[in-house]
Amino acid sequence: MDCEFIFTDAPIVISGTVPPAREVGAVVEFSGIVREQEGDARITGLSYETYEPMARREFGRICVELSALHSVYRVLLIHRLGNVPVGEASLYVRVEAAHRGPALAFCGALIDRMKQDVPIWKRPLAPADRDRTR
Amino acid sequence: MDCEFIFTDAPIVISGTVPPAREVGAVVEFSGIVREQEGDARITGLSYETYEPMARREFGRICVELSALHSVYRVLLIHRLGNVPVGEASLYVRVEAAHRGPALAFCGALIDRMKQDVPIWKRPLAPADRDRTR
Repeated sequence: MDCEFIFTDAPIVISGTVPPAREVGAVVEFSGIVREQEGDARITGLSYETYEPMARREFGRICVELSALHSVYRVLLIHRLGNVPVGEASLYVRVEAAHRGPALAFCGALIDRMKQDVPIWKRPLAPADRDRTR
Repeated sequence: MDCEFIFTDAPIVISGTVPPAREVGAVVEFSGIVREQEGDARITGLSYETYEPMARREFGRICVELSALHSVYRVLLIHRLGNVPVGEASLYVRVEAAHRGPALAFCGALIDRMKQDVPIWKRPLAPADRDRTR
């Protein structure tokens, strides 16, 4: 199984993905988008930080664990760092598998485990921070 | 909740989707792709047929039922009809929701229910049918 993790400061743009292999029957894509409501507060964005060496190690470990549970061929995860304004994606996940069950299950579990175990911290940006959302 | 169903004879191309509303935090996209293995047989494609009035009625009913279980904002489902060669998508589903849990659950359940209840029939295309895959 092939797992790729990308951290980026730039908006996530998905274009010209490699066509899936002939044994792939299911491609699940997930985009996590910053909402203007964070708990009870109205925000203008979220700012993300990571400790990349540890984040990569954790992602790798999680992928190995999950691939024992859900059979998939290829996983791509892109996470934005820095300030992400409301309406833009902070996370993109793509999972390719033979069948939809494992693809959907892997995708959901990967995000759950990421939120639990991967050192990515987010901070809400209040209206006063607006000039810093780019 | 807004549910749209499209049947098409042409390859499914997703481009320039409407940006999600500001309360959307999760977008799940699913592509179901024709594999070259159908059971034990090697195929060159699948041919799909539907009885559209009933299919639309069933999709509508399923969406209403599922939206009572999983809170989502917008659903788009595109299904190809006619001959679909190996490697091309026969199905595309896009679900927008506030949170990833309902988005993933709705997407999976919609496809399960579609396979169970919606009158869409598929027929494998053997190598001899190859000249008919377009």
